[in-house]
Amino acid sequence: MTDERRAAIMQAVYSALCTHGYADLTMQDIADESSLSKAALHYHYDTKRDLLLAFLEHLHGKFTDRLDDAEAAAGDDPAERLVAFLDAALLPPERDDADLREFRTAVLEIKAQAPYEPAFRTHLAEFDDFIHDRVAAIVADGIERGRFDDRADPQAVASFVVTVINGAHTRSVAVDHPVEETREVLVEYLCRHLAIDEEVVAR
Amino acid sequence: MTDERRAAIMQAVYSALCTHGYADLTMQDIADESSLSKAALHYHYDTKRDLLLAFLEHLHGKFTDRLDDAEAAAGDDPAERLVAFLDAALLPPERDDADLREFRTAVLEIKAQAPYEPAFRTHLAEFDDFIHDRVAAIVADGIERGRFDDRADPQAVASFVVTVINGAHTRSVAVDHPVEETREVLVEYLCRHLAIDEEVVAR
Repeated sequence: MTDERRAAIMQAVYSALCTHGYADLTMQDIADESSLSKAALHYHYDTKRDLLLAFLEHLHGKFTDRLDDAEAAAGDDPAERLVAFLDAALLPPERDDADLREFRTAVLEIKAQAPYEPAFRTHLAEFDDFIHDRVAAIVADGIERGRFDDRADPQAVASFVVTVINGAHTRSVAVDHPVEETREVLVEYLCRHLAIDEEVVAR
Repeated sequence: MTDERRAAIMQAVYSALCTHGYADLTMQDIADESSLSKAALHYHYDTKRDLLLAFLEHLHGKFTDRLDDAEAAAGDDPAERLVAFLDAALLPPERDDADLREFRTAVLEIKAQAPYEPAFRTHLAEFDDFIHDRVAAIVADGIERGRFDDRADPQAVASFVVTVINGAHTRSVAVDHPVEETREVLVEYLCRHLAIDEEVVAR
């Protein structure tokens, strides 16, 4: 399969998830969002489950690239890298809000399926692990360079941040709580906990 | 309907959600978990949706009673009340772990339905609001009595706590992350943020 075809199929899965949600999604719905027939989709992916697993993998690649880019663009300072990374994790990119809301809802449906689908769980854990490991590395770097309070435990901070990001997305879907508010409180917590000057990270 | 019958129906909904999850749940599944026929269930609740709304209301009553009792049992000290309240919110009661895991999964499915069901969202928001308002009140009381750092903002702390609790439950379902770990880090955050002596809240 060419990269172009793969990209087109992944875009079709994204659109179909936004339109139909996860529970009712069919291969026909995904085909309808692409220029391929359902038979052509099945040629590449035996089942809807296989296609969704490929989609989660694709999504993980895009997610990690985007967060890496955001961190790199923030320069060398650990506090600025940390905040740029969190902003990218919490507040996704250029997409319009209606789509984003639908997509987050579909992701929450997929999270609720994880206990029945160990392969989903494995993919979901990769998102959590990526955020965890990167935050822990930035915090450890900040401590080593004397920029962050050395009483902080990078692993504990990182795990807490992953929980807060999960909570922000769940509340956004379940009760429409603004992710932006969580972002403010999370940054304030990190500033106080790591002894970062709040002016360094003001947007 | 007698209180006994209502309690029996609510118990049947709980068991059916644990066994079947939310998406595939039928009135027949709920009837099968009770001593009532499907027709008798329909006599009290027109639709599955009506019954689930009554169940969310029932659950909210039990949840608030349990958290109120936990706070009251902790005595007068704001730090001890805060931790007792959070323990009750994060680490549910006597039920065995297998059931609890299934039930949390069903609740996450219901959260993912909220965008399509405004009445579900209203009920879910009541859980969040209850935790938020109670935590804000305890923090404000602690500040007023000179026990907590008066730079803390009770509303911001409360909103953060609600997000962390949502995140802890989502991660527990999605990637099997232990809620107990989140509890430890949350209490440590609160101790540092509110300037509580950690010995006061050691379990």
